[in-house]
Amino acid sequence: MLLDKINFPEELRQLRREELVSLSHELREFIISNVARTGGHLSSNLGVVELTLAIHYVFQTPEDLLVWDVGHQSYPHKILTGRKSRMPSLRQWGGLAGFPMRTESHYDAFGTAHSSTSLSAALGMAVAHKLDNIQHKEVIAVIGDGALSAGMAFEALNNIVLNSVNLLIIINDNNMSISHPVGGMERHLTSLLKGTHISRIKEFGKSVLSFAPTPVYDFAKLMVGQAERVIAPHNMFQNLGISYYPAVNGHNVEELVGTLERLKSIRGVRILHVVTQKGNGYKLSETDPITYHGPAKFDRDIGIVPNTTPAKRTYSQIFGYWLCHTAQSQAKLVAITPAMCEGSGMIEFAEQYPERYFDVGIAEQHALTFATGLACQGYKPVLAIYSTFLQRAYDQLIHDAALQNLNLVLAIDRAGIVGADGPTHAGIFDMAFMRCVPNIKIACPANALECYQLLNTAFASTGITAVRYPRGAGHGDFPIHARSLLEATLPIGQGQLCRSGKNIALLAFGTILHSCLQVGEELDLSVANMRWVKPLDESLVKELARTHQALVCVEESTRADGAGSAVLELLQDLQIYIPVLLLGIGDAFTVHGDPQIILHHLGLDADGIKKTILEKFSSYLHPSNG
Amino acid sequence: MLLDKINFPEELRQLRREELVSLSHELREFIISNVARTGGHLSSNLGVVELTLAIHYVFQTPEDLLVWDVGHQSYPHKILTGRKSRMPSLRQWGGLAGFPMRTESHYDAFGTAHSSTSLSAALGMAVAHKLDNIQHKEVIAVIGDGALSAGMAFEALNNIVLNSVNLLIIINDNNMSISHPVGGMERHLTSLLKGTHISRIKEFGKSVLSFAPTPVYDFAKLMVGQAERVIAPHNMFQNLGISYYPAVNGHNVEELVGTLERLKSIRGVRILHVVTQKGNGYKLSETDPITYHGPAKFDRDIGIVPNTTPAKRTYSQIFGYWLCHTAQSQAKLVAITPAMCEGSGMIEFAEQYPERYFDVGIAEQHALTFATGLACQGYKPVLAIYSTFLQRAYDQLIHDAALQNLNLVLAIDRAGIVGADGPTHAGIFDMAFMRCVPNIKIACPANALECYQLLNTAFASTGITAVRYPRGAGHGDFPIHARSLLEATLPIGQGQLCRSGKNIALLAFGTILHSCLQVGEELDLSVANMRWVKPLDESLVKELARTHQALVCVEESTRADGAGSAVLELLQDLQIYIPVLLLGIGDAFTVHGDPQIILHHLGLDADGIKKTILEKFSSYLHPSNG
Repeated sequence: MLLDKINFPEELRQLRREELVSLSHELREFIISNVARTGGHLSSNLGVVELTLAIHYVFQTPEDLLVWDVGHQSYPHKILTGRKSRMPSLRQWGGLAGFPMRTESHYDAFGTAHSSTSLSAALGMAVAHKLDNIQHKEVIAVIGDGALSAGMAFEALNNIVLNSVNLLIIINDNNMSISHPVGGMERHLTSLLKGTHISRIKEFGKSVLSFAPTPVYDFAKLMVGQAERVIAPHNMFQNLGISYYPAVNGHNVEELVGTLERLKSIRGVRILHVVTQKGNGYKLSETDPITYHGPAKFDRDIGIVPNTTPAKRTYSQIFGYWLCHTAQSQAKLVAITPAMCEGSGMIEFAEQYPERYFDVGIAEQHALTFATGLACQGYKPVLAIYSTFLQRAYDQLIHDAALQNLNLVLAIDRAGIVGADGPTHAGIFDMAFMRCVPNIKIACPANALECYQLLNTAFASTGITAVRYPRGAGHGDFPIHARSLLEATLPIGQGQLCRSGKNIALLAFGTILHSCLQVGEELDLSVANMRWVKPLDESLVKELARTHQALVCVEESTRADGAGSAVLELLQDLQIYIPVLLLGIGDAFTVHGDPQIILHHLGLDADGIKKTILEKFSSYLHPSNG
Repeated sequence: MLLDKINFPEELRQLRREELVSLSHELREFIISNVARTGGHLSSNLGVVELTLAIHYVFQTPEDLLVWDVGHQSYPHKILTGRKSRMPSLRQWGGLAGFPMRTESHYDAFGTAHSSTSLSAALGMAVAHKLDNIQHKEVIAVIGDGALSAGMAFEALNNIVLNSVNLLIIINDNNMSISHPVGGMERHLTSLLKGTHISRIKEFGKSVLSFAPTPVYDFAKLMVGQAERVIAPHNMFQNLGISYYPAVNGHNVEELVGTLERLKSIRGVRILHVVTQKGNGYKLSETDPITYHGPAKFDRDIGIVPNTTPAKRTYSQIFGYWLCHTAQSQAKLVAITPAMCEGSGMIEFAEQYPERYFDVGIAEQHALTFATGLACQGYKPVLAIYSTFLQRAYDQLIHDAALQNLNLVLAIDRAGIVGADGPTHAGIFDMAFMRCVPNIKIACPANALECYQLLNTAFASTGITAVRYPRGAGHGDFPIHARSLLEATLPIGQGQLCRSGKNIALLAFGTILHSCLQVGEELDLSVANMRWVKPLDESLVKELARTHQALVCVEESTRADGAGSAVLELLQDLQIYIPVLLLGIGDAFTVHGDPQIILHHLGLDADGIKKTILEKFSSYLHPSNG
């Protein structure tokens, strides 16, 4: 096995070019076996096996800087840069991250995970090289075709021409078909592959010339040949002033090496178009790259087996079900996703209501303002968006939605701790960054039924209402046949006392209620399901403060600025002075791993909540001793 | 006077086309006189006089929906849509807004002010028309060439091809020269004006054919003629699948009317390229459109007269001075602006250090991540950005800067109340949305010298340090010749007791300190200049709490999530239970007008602060009566 001997790119570079073919097969097998055991991203990584080998073979990483856009395709890179033996720990607590991380390896030039950041970062690095008069070092950004739909990537492309730097941009184009068109850029890339530009000219030439005498035909042929060189520049990248090198096969490692060596000898900003296939080399993922995008553990030989025992509905599925059901009676409902159809549970809606379904591509800013445009004309848009990606549409939320107080439902998925994907995907800031903005109501359901009912409430109410719910299975029963229950709305800004206990009241925001109830049982405390971060249930807070010695606010969100902080503000407004313990995520980014382990380490599982209460508020538990 | 008779577009549409020329002169004169009296945006409005007339003449506004990107060019639109008589109240408290506002007029289809939102909003409206089966209504978006550099506009352009809608996009291209190139898109637009695409082909043809026999020459000429039609489509918009109509003169109102009438008869998405001149028709603004971009009041005949008595240095100027001075000794300092060179006080730096100065265009997302790329390679970027525009780079701040804990200075200008530009430009959310993010330090200087010293501190410290300062003149003296003072840094997370008084302590965050000191004098209260929102000065808070009956936190920022809220969190952590009054901006957007008037209405001038303290905390002022 060649791979056994390769731990770092230096060893890779000792190989003969022909040997890279065998190595690519071994590397691919290693990835399949590893992801089958650990779960993780599969299709994207199988797509870049040869590209990764070729880059590390040709360039002098880590001195040459390699930036992976998104970075879920960085497994072959990790394997080849000293982390092969740690691959079984992938995405687990204390193990390798699923994305590049500067703290993990100096081969990871830039940490990524959100899409479309690579060009900006790489341009910054290339400018640093220029300022330092470093001519010989390369900066390489690898960006997918999908990532080019995000405005951020365009901003970088637009800015590049102003900087005379050395920068190699590799477009990893894995959407050769137009079966999933996500916009004009995607179609343009496809047209470049099909040679549309040239072929249209050629076809025109042929049709005109078919009856022409030979000398004229020959001359015209020459002209068309010359024209190719003149005309070819007019693709979008060259319109922006960037040199474009036409598509090469991303699974022919020897051809890739040859191409990269030629490009290495050219300076300036160069775009290389590489065509790859997601899931390449593993029949199951080739056929269904979406299912194999980010699978859980599976049997390498059998593949992913659908659960025979029906799994508990996830919050995303409940949202999807709500969407389809509500659309039946609500003709003004339209739904928008920034390229997260599957993750957000919208497949059925997209099939049932194609004319009311809008996948705008990876384009969060546009997604939000596009929604407000629809709202201006009387539609009621439901924007399904992950908490962490809403960060990309923050200005649009303030400036276009909230300021104009338009009617909009924000279905915020992946709120709170997300798990294996790590800090870049955790949804821990949304409460903080939303609650300061006027005209936004924020609901945080504690269970599956409540999530559905709060979506009803959000849709029925005016203005902007956000419903934030976590990744994973819904808590409690979801009474899918109890229509009256499912048709109910919940009063805005009203929580619920779930348990009456003594001395201390726990104010739970969201699904963390269930851990709070457990603690409530064990310590005989009151527990309230607050349900709304904004507006807060003032009378419930007042009543709990009046009848208890102390309050404990618990949330899966940052302590700073969070729901607990809102309680403190309210209590001061009410001139109620009572000890309040704020339990949430402290002032540090979370790490990757199993969500339960993360919550445990944050002190936000039942044990941790109980422990902190006993440590800090024991005097209020036993006031008679005080 | 024609304009006297025109109050609404219906009246405009009664005119003969030839009369529009006279009307355009009258309208231009009206705008110049009005802005000379009120101050406001001038150059941009003079540039669109004819375009505005032509649009309202040809289309049936408000049924046809008109969206102005940015909207600082909406004065002629306001004058023609029922607001002529209110123009003298422009941008003043209770008067007309300087930007389109849906609540101001049903002719304002969408409220704007931040750049590049128009295409997304207009696409949403056009999709709504399509869903409603409305064929006859037009949606028109007018967007400047500069606004096309923002990723958000690209996201919309990219998404348009997926929607078969009726939408007219007018590119208002007022940068014919490339003297201020802001990127590839700008250059591309310029090349379209120069007909580069076609002319390159033609020149090639001429050079090849100059010696050819006549029949071949004639045939080839035919071919080139045909090729024009084939080749012309390959500009960037058509690469994205959108029909492009070549540039017309935006100051020939009759030609514009003709062109718009032809485009009206075509359906689908159409881009019309219109060339205008900023400041057109007023010699002074034609010559210097930047100075006349947003002037204060001036004499119409004399023009803007530079102050002969030196004005007090603004915070922006102090920042610019700091930048130049620091760059002398700090070779790793680089400075980045998203198209706000003048506003951010960076003209001198750009001239003195062109190689370390980066204007990336209107591209906040890219600006931030570009900065992190430079930081990765050992540079220390200073990103100069308005508070309200930082909202556009929030995800990049979290994901690329804070998570990787890179070294970065954020010079946040226009923090707090901004004034005449209104709610879209107020910088009231930054404290809230930043303080929940780990690895960010936030300083809020109270005066000019402190601003300079805190910039020193930020530059000298590792990680991300934000220094937020307001619009307008610096408070206090700025001892420009006292080098030792100007070289000082201030300790991180340390405030200062400015006045020792009785019973109540005021904790002032930022320049609002000066109003607090006044209140402190009047009521004999203690007053602290907190200087840092994060990290908070724990020992100062502790000491103030220990020695006073109550605390009052004062900030020019949202109460929710703000600095006062951070104080509440800290006090609970310290288990200190003391009444705290939070004074800041309540849960509503601010309005436009003179900053002092706004602060007065918010209760955040000295009188307001005093009044609220007397109302709510009088019992602590006189504890003996309690």
